[in-house]
Amino acid sequence: MTERPDALRRLRSTHEAAVLGELRRSGALSRSELMERVGLSRSTLFAIVADLLERGAVHEQRARDRSRGRGRPALRLALNSRGAELIGLDLSRSGLHVVIANCAHETVARTSAALQPDSSPAERAEVAVTTLEKLATSLGVSLAPIQGIGLGLPGFVQDPAAEADVPTPEAREIAAALEARLGAPVVTDNNARLAALAEATWGAARGHGNFVYLRWSDGVGGGFMVDGRLVRGAHGTAGEIGHTSCDPQGPFCHCGGRGCLEGSVRIPVLLEACTARGTPVRDAAELAARAAAGDPAAVGVVGEAADAVGRVLAAAAAHTDPDCVVLDGELAGLDELVLAPVRRQLSRLSLPAAQRRITVRASALDGYAAARGGVALLLRRAGQESGGLLEVSPPQSPLAAGEGAASAAE
Amino acid sequence: MTERPDALRRLRSTHEAAVLGELRRSGALSRSELMERVGLSRSTLFAIVADLLERGAVHEQRARDRSRGRGRPALRLALNSRGAELIGLDLSRSGLHVVIANCAHETVARTSAALQPDSSPAERAEVAVTTLEKLATSLGVSLAPIQGIGLGLPGFVQDPAAEADVPTPEAREIAAALEARLGAPVVTDNNARLAALAEATWGAARGHGNFVYLRWSDGVGGGFMVDGRLVRGAHGTAGEIGHTSCDPQGPFCHCGGRGCLEGSVRIPVLLEACTARGTPVRDAAELAARAAAGDPAAVGVVGEAADAVGRVLAAAAAHTDPDCVVLDGELAGLDELVLAPVRRQLSRLSLPAAQRRITVRASALDGYAAARGGVALLLRRAGQESGGLLEVSPPQSPLAAGEGAASAAE
Repeated sequence: MTERPDALRRLRSTHEAAVLGELRRSGALSRSELMERVGLSRSTLFAIVADLLERGAVHEQRARDRSRGRGRPALRLALNSRGAELIGLDLSRSGLHVVIANCAHETVARTSAALQPDSSPAERAEVAVTTLEKLATSLGVSLAPIQGIGLGLPGFVQDPAAEADVPTPEAREIAAALEARLGAPVVTDNNARLAALAEATWGAARGHGNFVYLRWSDGVGGGFMVDGRLVRGAHGTAGEIGHTSCDPQGPFCHCGGRGCLEGSVRIPVLLEACTARGTPVRDAAELAARAAAGDPAAVGVVGEAADAVGRVLAAAAAHTDPDCVVLDGELAGLDELVLAPVRRQLSRLSLPAAQRRITVRASALDGYAAARGGVALLLRRAGQESGGLLEVSPPQSPLAAGEGAASAAE
Repeated sequence: MTERPDALRRLRSTHEAAVLGELRRSGALSRSELMERVGLSRSTLFAIVADLLERGAVHEQRARDRSRGRGRPALRLALNSRGAELIGLDLSRSGLHVVIANCAHETVARTSAALQPDSSPAERAEVAVTTLEKLATSLGVSLAPIQGIGLGLPGFVQDPAAEADVPTPEAREIAAALEARLGAPVVTDNNARLAALAEATWGAARGHGNFVYLRWSDGVGGGFMVDGRLVRGAHGTAGEIGHTSCDPQGPFCHCGGRGCLEGSVRIPVLLEACTARGTPVRDAAELAARAAAGDPAAVGVVGEAADAVGRVLAAAAAHTDPDCVVLDGELAGLDELVLAPVRRQLSRLSLPAAQRRITVRASALDGYAAARGGVALLLRRAGQESGGLLEVSPPQSPLAAGEGAASAAE
């Protein structure tokens, strides 16, 4: 997308990051306290503060300073925790998830909405903006300070060689519409890869530099983290675990391949299989509930699919050697029926003699992993492009504000 | 291993690298010419030169300086192209390969020798040292300047979490014996991963930041390069492509898994299969020759195995998205019978709709990839540990000296 260096540069500033970091740690501070703690000159600090005030990222609080007795109250600066600074947006084929993060990198609001699977890029962008604005209005969150939008899309999104964020025409159109409507730059990546980034930053893979993320839902996608870096690959298609061919003579897949894992385990296929075995189920939630309740058809269908997923993950684990596997999607909460078979296949088929420890966990970000990954991507870009990784330490209570503020759409 | 900071530090010096780089580019130079071109102070340069002379890495040439007329000949410094600075050593179960690189990073000698598969670590180290010394003596190469030994070993060699180069007792013993006998530090890694590093540095994968290397021989190993970095994984076992399970109910493998690719395509298995089909063959070279000559049994056995290899590589390519696959081993030279089926499986099973370009090539390092990778590892360590990647540009004729100087053992 068209780069907006002025807007992104603000975000990138290391000094600004230091100021915001100090306010995050210490709460409200006067300008002179800030100056002392951050170690910036008076003029640099005042310029940064003026900019932050203008953007609505911080605000001034007039508080009585006890050391001054009954004198004029001191002006203190505090983070505007209700200002939206970073937007994470996950547009899948049938729905969208959005999170709003403030400049403390706390999720202050999140919501989801349905999308017509056959809607145009412009229509999808419009639904996203409307949903975002409605969410912000209902919670009194200002959208004025927005510095960037991290957009997750399905499919082959990124072409790193071309240094372009969004190579597909559809993705380009959505990103351009969002930029125009929200007045902030958009960075884009495949939504399963973004989810992996979020799991690394705030979720089930925190502390793991080498892990595999698998999103098992209506489609099957994933992401690899290697040495603390998200793998994008030479053509931006890395992580397509769902398109591992399990049967070279199997049915054709929309990816052009044959016998792909996705074709045999994606949720719609499992619903049909379960129905064919005498237990009609309408959606993933019902399938998960039936399986958890011990319905033999559901247990069989889910268990066999989990075995297939586990076998593919065992191959992936022999190749990239992770110490953590994170499973996401509607069935990932089934510990005995889903996580256990995956653990079993990993331990029996993936280098048993090497005695590795591979932790298998469900996602900790309940459906919002990719949207949060959009925020994580913005933070990484900001950090990397200013020469050092911006601190992406999670807020004390990563979802605290979000849980309370979650809109009616959830 | 015991670190020898004094010896390694020399290698790491950025200033020294600049001096050696200038001598590589410009040939013989006087001290004052060097001082001017490298931009070092007189005292720094003289100290570096004294050290290089002492180690035998450079030597002085007395050459008539035309600008001085018939005066005293000027002393010029030149690289001692016959001095061994870095040793690359690949110890597989049944044989060893060794390369000697001078301080211009040119291979000045290489050779191979057989190893008794059941020999002890001490015996293996002894054969390696004897072979190296015999090679050096026969070619008049001095081993005095040795700065490091890069050692490739089969199996699960490295534990990056522990920051230890050599975790297995056997590897530790070999490395300790080499250090004691050769008086230089040893760094160690899995030999297939080292081969991948060599292919990236001097071989078939030059210019590819994302590629997969597969060594298909008596065993099947490999290595992944992602974003220009060799993937070691959380437990140091990354790259074990041969231990992809292709049949979860298949025969048990020495890795503890079942139905591994290695078990159905490693050379000894193919020799048996070819013999069983009526064409007795004794070794890999004969198998390759028979297949190339069109013997139906050999063609069938090799072609089916190449299909299996291609299917596993297609899965790997869906996961990590390389733009290059390098095949090594005795059969990799069979373009039509081996590379073509691999290309075919990649293009029919690995994200055909994404229209990626994946180049499939044979190794360019004729059996010496892992040994050369030992040298590449030393160069990378030196570069990384001094804060920037040391220039690992290949010499003008990477094998020129080696080809001529190759010992009788080849």
